[in-house]
Amino acid sequence: MENSPKFGVIGGGSWATAIVKMLSENLDEINWYMRSKTAIEHIRTQDHNPNYLSSVEFDVKQLRLSNDINEVVKNSDYLIFAIPSAFVKAELDKLVIPLKDKVIFSAIKGIVPETSLIVGEHFNKEYGVLDENFGVITGPCHAEEVALERLSYLTIACQDEKKATIMANHLQSDYITCKTSDDVTGTEYAAMLKNIYAIAAGIAHGLGYGDNFQSVLMSNAIREMKKFIKQVHKMKRNINDSAYLGDLLVTGYSVFSRNRMFGNMIGKGYTVKSAQMEMSMIAEGYYATESAYKINQKKAAKTPIIDAVYSILYEGKNPKKVFNKLAEKLD
Amino acid sequence: MENSPKFGVIGGGSWATAIVKMLSENLDEINWYMRSKTAIEHIRTQDHNPNYLSSVEFDVKQLRLSNDINEVVKNSDYLIFAIPSAFVKAELDKLVIPLKDKVIFSAIKGIVPETSLIVGEHFNKEYGVLDENFGVITGPCHAEEVALERLSYLTIACQDEKKATIMANHLQSDYITCKTSDDVTGTEYAAMLKNIYAIAAGIAHGLGYGDNFQSVLMSNAIREMKKFIKQVHKMKRNINDSAYLGDLLVTGYSVFSRNRMFGNMIGKGYTVKSAQMEMSMIAEGYYATESAYKINQKKAAKTPIIDAVYSILYEGKNPKKVFNKLAEKLD
Repeated sequence: MENSPKFGVIGGGSWATAIVKMLSENLDEINWYMRSKTAIEHIRTQDHNPNYLSSVEFDVKQLRLSNDINEVVKNSDYLIFAIPSAFVKAELDKLVIPLKDKVIFSAIKGIVPETSLIVGEHFNKEYGVLDENFGVITGPCHAEEVALERLSYLTIACQDEKKATIMANHLQSDYITCKTSDDVTGTEYAAMLKNIYAIAAGIAHGLGYGDNFQSVLMSNAIREMKKFIKQVHKMKRNINDSAYLGDLLVTGYSVFSRNRMFGNMIGKGYTVKSAQMEMSMIAEGYYATESAYKINQKKAAKTPIIDAVYSILYEGKNPKKVFNKLAEKLD
Repeated sequence: MENSPKFGVIGGGSWATAIVKMLSENLDEINWYMRSKTAIEHIRTQDHNPNYLSSVEFDVKQLRLSNDINEVVKNSDYLIFAIPSAFVKAELDKLVIPLKDKVIFSAIKGIVPETSLIVGEHFNKEYGVLDENFGVITGPCHAEEVALERLSYLTIACQDEKKATIMANHLQSDYITCKTSDDVTGTEYAAMLKNIYAIAAGIAHGLGYGDNFQSVLMSNAIREMKKFIKQVHKMKRNINDSAYLGDLLVTGYSVFSRNRMFGNMIGKGYTVKSAQMEMSMIAEGYYATESAYKINQKKAAKTPIIDAVYSILYEGKNPKKVFNKLAEKLD
C-alpha cells in the first residue's frame, strides 16, 4: 500500500506471528520485534517461526526483524502489541523511545498483573498514550486458523474511527474480514473476561459436567459479561456481536484454549500450582480472574461465575462444591 | 407425588425415553405410548428401551406401556408429545379421544410438515387445544446426557404458570433443573430455528470453514433468531437465556446433532436426497428451513443464514457459492 504508515509488531508468539502474516498480505515492510535472537535467525534463514505457527512461510524480504524493542518502536507509526499480559511491563521497561506519539493497538487479551489494569488503561496511565491513539484488535480468532488461511473475522476498536479503519485495511485479506468499533474498553474487557469463562468451562468439563451444562454455562456467561461490562463502561453495544459472544464461544468451546485446559486440570483435581507448572505458562485468565473479581467488588453486578472461579483459584475452595453451588445459580 | 395429575408420554425415541426417565424420579405411574410392540415387550422384560438410551434401566412397575395412543391419552391429564414433527399428523390421526380437555406439552422441536405450523398452533387449530392448556418443554438438553444423569436445565413454557410449574415439578430432580417461562411461541420457534442454524454449522464444517467462522456464524445466528422471533411474537425476552442461546449452542456445537450431520454431508458434496437417504431419517431442520423461509417472506426480518440454507436445500444452489456470499454478510 502506498503512503502507508509504518507498522511494527511486538511479540514472537502465535498470535503475533498470525498478525505479521495478515500484515504481510498488504505491506512490503513490517517491523517485527521478538526477544529471541535464535528465533529471529531461524526466521531469516528458514522463512518460518520455529516455535509458533511454523507452517507459515514468510517472504523475509518483507520483514524487518529485531530483538531490540526500541528499534522497532522507533521505526513504526502503528504498533501492535501481541505478547502475554504478564510480559507487558517487562517489555515496556526496556523502552527509551516515548510511546505517546505512536498509535498503539493491543492484541493482548488480559490484565497487566503489576498494575491490575487492562492494557489500554496501562498505556494511558503509565505511558501517556491518549485514548484516541489506542485501539484493540480482537477475535474470535485462533491464530492456528489464520495460519491455515481459514476465513476469520476481527473487530478493530478505536475511538478514532480513521485509525481503526487504517488498521482494518492493513489486516484484512481474502481470509480476514475486519469490522471497526468504537467500544475500546468493552471489547478489551470482553477479551479478558472470556478467558475466565473458558477456565470455568474447563473446570466444569474436568468435573464431569457435560455439553448440556456447558451450553447453560455459556448462556449465563454472556449475560454476566454484559452486566459486568455495562458496569465498567456503559454504552450502547450488542453483546451478541462477534467481538463479545463470538470471542467467548471460540474460546469457551475450544479444546486447545490454554485457559480451558488450565480449568480442566483444576476440575480434574490438580492444584492451581501444579496445573500452572504442568502447563509451563500461566493462563491469561488466571490474572484476569483476580482483577475482574476485585473490580467487581466495587460495583454491583452479580457475577456468580467469576466469583466461583475466583474462590477456586485464589481461596483454595473445592471445585466440586463450588460448582455445585454455582449450578444452583445458573438458569 | 400425591394428588398428581396423571402423566402420559407419547413417543418411543431417545427424547421420549429421557422424559420418561425424568418423570420416573417423581411419579409411581407413567403412561407411555410407543408404536412398536416389540420395543414395549422388550422394556417389559428387559427393563430398558432396546433402541434408544438403552443404558437407562426402568422400574417397569412404574410404567403403563401401551401401543394404543388412545388408551394413553384417555388415562392421562398431562400429555407430553416427544415424537418427530414429521409423525405428529399420522399419530394424531389415530385419536378418537378428544384432546381439548388435556394439558398438552410439546417436546417436539419442529414444524408439522403437512400444515407448516409450529406444534402449538397445530394443536390449537386442528384439535381445539386452548393456549392456556398448551406448553413447551425445551432444552438445551441432549437426551444422552439425561441417561448419564448429567446436570441439565430445561425451560417449561406455558401461558398458565401453574401448569408450567406442575410440569417443572414433575420433571426436575437431582440432575434436572427446570425454569418456567410464559414465552410459549418464542421458545417453540427457537427450538425450531436452532435446527436450521445447526444445519448451517454443519454445511460450514463440511465446506472446510473452521472454529473462528463457526463462532461468528453462531453470533450472527442468535442475532438473526432474535429478529425472527420478534417478528412472529413480540414480547420482552432475553434471547441469551438458556432456552434460546443455550439451545442453539448445544445443537450448533454438537457433533452428534442429526441436523448438523445432515448439513455436514451437504457441505461435503452430498445432494439433499442422498444425504437424507444416508441418514435414513429426515432431519427436523429440513422442514423447519422451508417453513421459516416462507413465514419470513411475509415479514421484514433479515435472515441471511436461513435464506442461505433454504437456497441450498430447496433451490439446489451450490453450497460453496452460497456460503461465500453468506460470509460477506456476517460480521
